[in-house]
Amino acid sequence: MAIVLGANQYGKAETRVVRVVRDGSRHELTDLNVSTTLAGDLADVHLHGDNAHVLPTDSQKNTVYAFARELGIDAIEDFGLALARHFVESQPAIHRARVSIERYPWRRVGDHSFEREGTQIRTATVTYDGRRSTVVAGLTGLTLLNTTGSEFWGYARDRYTTLPETRERILATAVDARWRYAGDAGDWDASYDATRRLLVEAFAGTHSLSLQQTLYAMGRRVLEERAEIAEVRLAMPNRHHFLVDLAAFGLDNPDEVYLAADRPYGLIEGTVSRDDAPEPGLAWW
Amino acid sequence: MAIVLGANQYGKAETRVVRVVRDGSRHELTDLNVSTTLAGDLADVHLHGDNAHVLPTDSQKNTVYAFARELGIDAIEDFGLALARHFVESQPAIHRARVSIERYPWRRVGDHSFEREGTQIRTATVTYDGRRSTVVAGLTGLTLLNTTGSEFWGYARDRYTTLPETRERILATAVDARWRYAGDAGDWDASYDATRRLLVEAFAGTHSLSLQQTLYAMGRRVLEERAEIAEVRLAMPNRHHFLVDLAAFGLDNPDEVYLAADRPYGLIEGTVSRDDAPEPGLAWW
Amino acid sequence: MAIVLGANQYGKAETRVVRVVRDGSRHELTDLNVSTTLAGDLADVHLHGDNAHVLPTDSQKNTVYAFARELGIDAIEDFGLALARHFVESQPAIHRARVSIERYPWRRVGDHSFEREGTQIRTATVTYDGRRSTVVAGLTGLTLLNTTGSEFWGYARDRYTTLPETRERILATAVDARWRYAGDAGDWDASYDATRRLLVEAFAGTHSLSLQQTLYAMGRRVLEERAEIAEVRLAMPNRHHFLVDLAAFGLDNPDEVYLAADRPYGLIEGTVSRDDAPEPGLAWW
Amino acid sequence: MAIVLGANQYGKAETRVVRVVRDGSRHELTDLNVSTTLAGDLADVHLHGDNAHVLPTDSQKNTVYAFARELGIDAIEDFGLALARHFVESQPAIHRARVSIERYPWRRVGDHSFEREGTQIRTATVTYDGRRSTVVAGLTGLTLLNTTGSEFWGYARDRYTTLPETRERILATAVDARWRYAGDAGDWDASYDATRRLLVEAFAGTHSLSLQQTLYAMGRRVLEERAEIAEVRLAMPNRHHFLVDLAAFGLDNPDEVYLAADRPYGLIEGTVSRDDAPEPGLAWW
Repeated sequence: MAIVLGANQYGKAETRVVRVVRDGSRHELTDLNVSTTLAGDLADVHLHGDNAHVLPTDSQKNTVYAFARELGIDAIEDFGLALARHFVESQPAIHRARVSIERYPWRRVGDHSFEREGTQIRTATVTYDGRRSTVVAGLTGLTLLNTTGSEFWGYARDRYTTLPETRERILATAVDARWRYAGDAGDWDASYDATRRLLVEAFAGTHSLSLQQTLYAMGRRVLEERAEIAEVRLAMPNRHHFLVDLAAFGLDNPDEVYLAADRPYGLIEGTVSRDDAPEPGLAWW
Repeated sequence: MAIVLGANQYGKAETRVVRVVRDGSRHELTDLNVSTTLAGDLADVHLHGDNAHVLPTDSQKNTVYAFARELGIDAIEDFGLALARHFVESQPAIHRARVSIERYPWRRVGDHSFEREGTQIRTATVTYDGRRSTVVAGLTGLTLLNTTGSEFWGYARDRYTTLPETRERILATAVDARWRYAGDAGDWDASYDATRRLLVEAFAGTHSLSLQQTLYAMGRRVLEERAEIAEVRLAMPNRHHFLVDLAAFGLDNPDEVYLAADRPYGLIEGTVSRDDAPEPGLAWW
Repeated sequence: MAIVLGANQYGKAETRVVRVVRDGSRHELTDLNVSTTLAGDLADVHLHGDNAHVLPTDSQKNTVYAFARELGIDAIEDFGLALARHFVESQPAIHRARVSIERYPWRRVGDHSFEREGTQIRTATVTYDGRRSTVVAGLTGLTLLNTTGSEFWGYARDRYTTLPETRERILATAVDARWRYAGDAGDWDASYDATRRLLVEAFAGTHSLSLQQTLYAMGRRVLEERAEIAEVRLAMPNRHHFLVDLAAFGLDNPDEVYLAADRPYGLIEGTVSRDDAPEPGLAWW
Repeated sequence: MAIVLGANQYGKAETRVVRVVRDGSRHELTDLNVSTTLAGDLADVHLHGDNAHVLPTDSQKNTVYAFARELGIDAIEDFGLALARHFVESQPAIHRARVSIERYPWRRVGDHSFEREGTQIRTATVTYDGRRSTVVAGLTGLTLLNTTGSEFWGYARDRYTTLPETRERILATAVDARWRYAGDAGDWDASYDATRRLLVEAFAGTHSLSLQQTLYAMGRRVLEERAEIAEVRLAMPNRHHFLVDLAAFGLDNPDEVYLAADRPYGLIEGTVSRDDAPEPGLAWW
């Protein structure tokens, strides 16, 4: 028996870069959180502390800032691709790079004034291995709620089942969505905007017999409408809203007053894909 | 020397209540976090564990849910007033009640579908002492950024001052604002919406020589425009954005690429009021 | 009617300073989060953007680091006093300074190795106005739980009261304690350690008929034992643990299995002081 | 091309269960956060909203509480195994179950009094597929710091490298460790305690030329000493401590005063395993 090094990677997490474009009096603002991860021929540093193959994480951070100036930042997918390719192509010992980017939303309130808009964060994770690049885009923090059109009944029962069936409940969730592109989407921003809209529409438009059904409908809707997307992965907590029993106070509660609970919560995770989707390779690495 | 009981209060914090109005096919949604605090003749419970004067915090929670059904929820200021008056008027031992409410924003995306909108939370703190009620409204989580129109120079210097003066910087902050009403504002929702808008406009429209100047301009603008408001209190962190030095990479950086820093941060706090404002009493208790 | 500037202050929040003492092979580690706040003749900067009286928050940060080297860091109370006095005495426009310090606990695991120990944070807030200094010490994050010896019955009842009385419950809380010193405590570290121990002992040793009774007993115990302390302020959430009803599964539950709830929670706040305590002045400012 | 359902699972997250053992006057306390996840024949619920195969997440929560009473809770690994086996063996449609448990540490301060101890959380993830069970244990929140014995030099350089080499730095990290057992460890608690101790000792005892070297030394030490463990996975952020430049104030800084930075941070992830380790199967699922 021997002890061996297994999978490993390293990088700089959460480099916060803000870019202002000052063409004319109407400025543009881009606000990102960039994490870079490298893997490759890194046995010597683990086994012997030999750093010859280790590009410092500080240099990775510097590269993010320099690329923001040299290349600008348009779609975050393209910015991620440029960074991932750079690390693999310029560092012989590095065979794979992953760049994960969060983009924070700002709303214009003046020619050079902005207001941070909401909790929704656009994400992109780009992976490049020297031959092939994959792009996974996504969003987090999209909290949705239907006040009606949600039921839950006909489920399996066991000794520990006490939940009453319902034909009317609030359905609420915070969508964590990621979707893998089949190749280059061309206009990444347009694809993101459309996908986000489709997820919201499918949630709102689905009469739900279970959160799983809603999740699948959301993924299916994206694939039906967006040919550039090969696969959608969704994680959706069931943010329970319990109807409050007011009978002890002589009051009825006709689906009006709810308690929004914290924990525990249901958690539904699922994948919807095309049967001819290209192999994911390292996309979800 | 004797050991004595000083100021004390108790209550139920963070009762999460969601109300749905189902008049017709177009539903309305209200999402609140309610905290109640009571004070009064509570020496016996502290000194002897005698609970005769203690209305359980569980009963306070129940009251929030019951009032949501009995009275409905219109402006959160009115909901808070109703609760505060109820506790003082129905419990002989309770001489003061404070009700603090957070209202979470949702945006309509369908007749009965909603999307949580942003991080901005509307707040109201109502205090009632049996004779007088005071209302403080506010908001938290309003993050604003100007890409230009901000300078900082001419400041005091000492042995530890190394900061270079600047005539051009990003100014960013997360506004925590609270304003005290002179009396009953009538349409609380309209007053909130206008005040929020005035704060944003004043931030965006002020050429800033210091964050203190911007803070004062924001408070002043509110008082100039809203006669129903007696006093504005603002706490505004200076979310530093540092221009990145790219010279080591042979690059200039003409006010384009910035590092958004976490800690430490400047913190500016100030009050703007009318010189004839009514005494605050327990408003800020 | 005129619009006027009211109370205001500014400073640098959350300067993170770590100091290592390397006398011999056994190193010492101090890990602090320091916030400085200044107030004084600051009307011009608010009204006109004139910074002549404004010592930059960046200079305040630099001062924290320089003092860590020049003075070292022994008790955080003394470090805070040195900083507060420095700002008031060296800046003519500054009439009051407050320095708030958090100290993070580390446990030694080797001559030069340490393990972060727990969530308890020691705090100190020092205020100096040019004549008098006040010191408030404290701790946050002290979570305590008694599995027995807690009752709750005999409370006030109203239409909304449904809570059953209990002679046996879990009592759990996360203590937020602050205590004001009558003057210079001499050995601040010894006073902190003793006070922390007394709070724990009083919580564990009090048969509780209400959390208010426990709170008062904790404050009283500190004042009985520590002559240097004039006043204790405590805020203690009631971290509810509900006995789970297992009857539907044919099981009893003899005070064994509990659900630890998040929200809502009771919140008890109280002050215990000496009747001859010196006036607090700006201590709680 | 068809749209198809891919990998999916569902369950109840974060069921908070606290158990008190009252044998005699000296009570025992167990405080857990349990998440259950089920997978199997769940196509119908996703595609058609047919819940016949769906055991409600509410029933899963109930099961956690009932098992805490029926079986008690000894090692969390055994509690997880019992739950995972129960779901797969009692629900025909469920083919795989994963149970993840966090155990919060409490320190005894009296016969029936406890103080929450620290931020370190013990974890266990148990997976069962009807034939084989795998156990992954771990810990999070173990923050370690060496004041000396850490260097970083001889690394790869590129156009964006500006980091100076160092022969003396603070090395600090928050260890996230998970280890896979080769089979049944017998005394899970003893194995956890020993592994935790070995990780701390290896961190403190390794003269570090890179955080990767330290990570590998920690994993190797565990495998050398604990025959029951097949593989160790570690994720360790580099919590940068920067020596503050005090020269502008006429002060030197002989490795004494440091700035503890938040973001960005290096992130090192690695696996150390035995070359004859059994296949992981679904252990890391």
